Amino acid sequence: VSAADPATAWVDGRPCASVSVLDRGLHFGDGLFETIACCRGRPRFLALHLERLALGCERLRLAGVDFAALRREVATLAAEQDRALIKVLVTRGIATARGYAARGDEHATRIVLRYAWPTEAGQPSETGVAARVAQLRLAESPALAGLKHLNRLELVLARAELADPEVFELLLLSQSGRVVSGSMSNVFIVQHGALRTPRITLAGVAGVMRRVVLTRTQAHGLPVSEADLSMADLASAEEIFLTNARIGIYPVRALDGRALVPGPITRRVQALLASALDNPQDP
Amino acid sequence: VSAADPATAWVDGRPCASVSVLDRGLHFGDGLFETIACCRGRPRFLALHLERLALGCERLRLAGVDFAALRREVATLAAEQDRALIKVLVTRGIATARGYAARGDEHATRIVLRYAWPTEAGQPSETGVAARVAQLRLAESPALAGLKHLNRLELVLARAELADPEVFELLLLSQSGRVVSGSMSNVFIVQHGALRTPRITLAGVAGVMRRVVLTRTQAHGLPVSEADLSMADLASAEEIFLTNARIGIYPVRALDGRALVPGPITRRVQALLASALDNPQDP
Repeated sequence: VSAADPATAWVDGRPCASVSVLDRGLHFGDGLFETIACCRGRPRFLALHLERLALGCERLRLAGVDFAALRREVATLAAEQDRALIKVLVTRGIATARGYAARGDEHATRIVLRYAWPTEAGQPSETGVAARVAQLRLAESPALAGLKHLNRLELVLARAELADPEVFELLLLSQSGRVVSGSMSNVFIVQHGALRTPRITLAGVAGVMRRVVLTRTQAHGLPVSEADLSMADLASAEEIFLTNARIGIYPVRALDGRALVPGPITRRVQALLASALDNPQDP
Repeated sequence: VSAADPATAWVDGRPCASVSVLDRGLHFGDGLFETIACCRGRPRFLALHLERLALGCERLRLAGVDFAALRREVATLAAEQDRALIKVLVTRGIATARGYAARGDEHATRIVLRYAWPTEAGQPSETGVAARVAQLRLAESPALAGLKHLNRLELVLARAELADPEVFELLLLSQSGRVVSGSMSNVFIVQHGALRTPRITLAGVAGVMRRVVLTRTQAHGLPVSEADLSMADLASAEEIFLTNARIGIYPVRALDGRALVPGPITRRVQALLASALDNPQDP
């Protein structure tokens, strides 16, 4: 039993630990995924996860995903779990012809995996985490930007840069030098007291927690915007924090060795989200 | 039984039609593939395919692939086949931890599939094929350029542009407007009597047949070079042809409606390769 073994694995609604050797997810990365945090028996922000997944399916013209079944399966796997992670993968299914082209007669494959909540030393949401800027620059692909698709090889390569276990996350620039995100998180910075996060138009994933932060801060009147950000913006940021479905909001306490202090805006955003993170509601 | 059903599927040396739901090939596209043409019982250019695969493994730091077993398996599946295609996939194996990072303790997964040789109307290597330039522009990623990796979603999307069954191939530019390749082939053009093919430094696959054409034309004293090519170069090309492991060399007889004639250089290159394509030798 390894750290990666899910407690439960379902494929198309049945307990199953394998997929066809012809699945287009394997051959081409032709699919999407979601990582959903579960808390007190409920999936967090499930509606937003399913909405992003549906939007991704639309952009990829990946039809036939049974969202009602998916919603039921995630809810069932979340029930009675105090803390757990559920990873959903949806692929275009088994190839019905050779080659890249989809014929349109494929049946989507639906995979749901439940993992134990990872253990972490300390209280990173309080004390913050260290981050570094990666050497590898992400490809810019407007057709894929924003999607949580299965083509993740660049991130696998980027993570290989990270040997220091004390560094929690790598921040990534794109080929033209724009800040995109962390390898597994989105990034927000504070400049002159205002929140800014990279636009996700050329590369990166439009994270669910990023969206939650954007909408809740706007709703509470905090100045916040999506922008083109560079290394210089990172270097001059008053505060930096990371977001993803599991971590919620982690302040960055060091970036490439420069010390940062979890600041008042970061704390305010954490406070705005605390209840939603601890007590998931439907939808 | 669909057009995509392989006659034979082996995983790690045993008849098997499935892979683990935790395979990193599925989750991240963390792997590589080869498509090998078999002719008269032998795999064509097997040594070159295995060499490219080994180079790809090195670049991805994907260790532990049993190349001796792979060579045996491909040879076994090719035997007694007059014509067949063998697709090899190699992934980093089952995830041993959550997240993108490889821990280094993974065991590579080796998949070998044999497909029937596709039937095609007419004699495209004689009369040529029609091609179009795709709207979608490929991402530029020096870290991945050249590799035949499993992140192929852009090509899936590009192929969706191709509704006309009379058009055989889509040519692709990259984000900065450079010609890269076809969706499933490499491309050569003739300008002022000299052969040119796009450099594969930012995007695209360094095809085995492309390499064979480059080395054999050089060996026979034909002027040939790798270059940065644009739409203007395609528009002014005297001849254009496509290469891949299966098709060998197909002349382009029309590009975006502009008629082209399979010319003398194309015919000369076809003649140079004819024997090697029809009678594969070891190595």
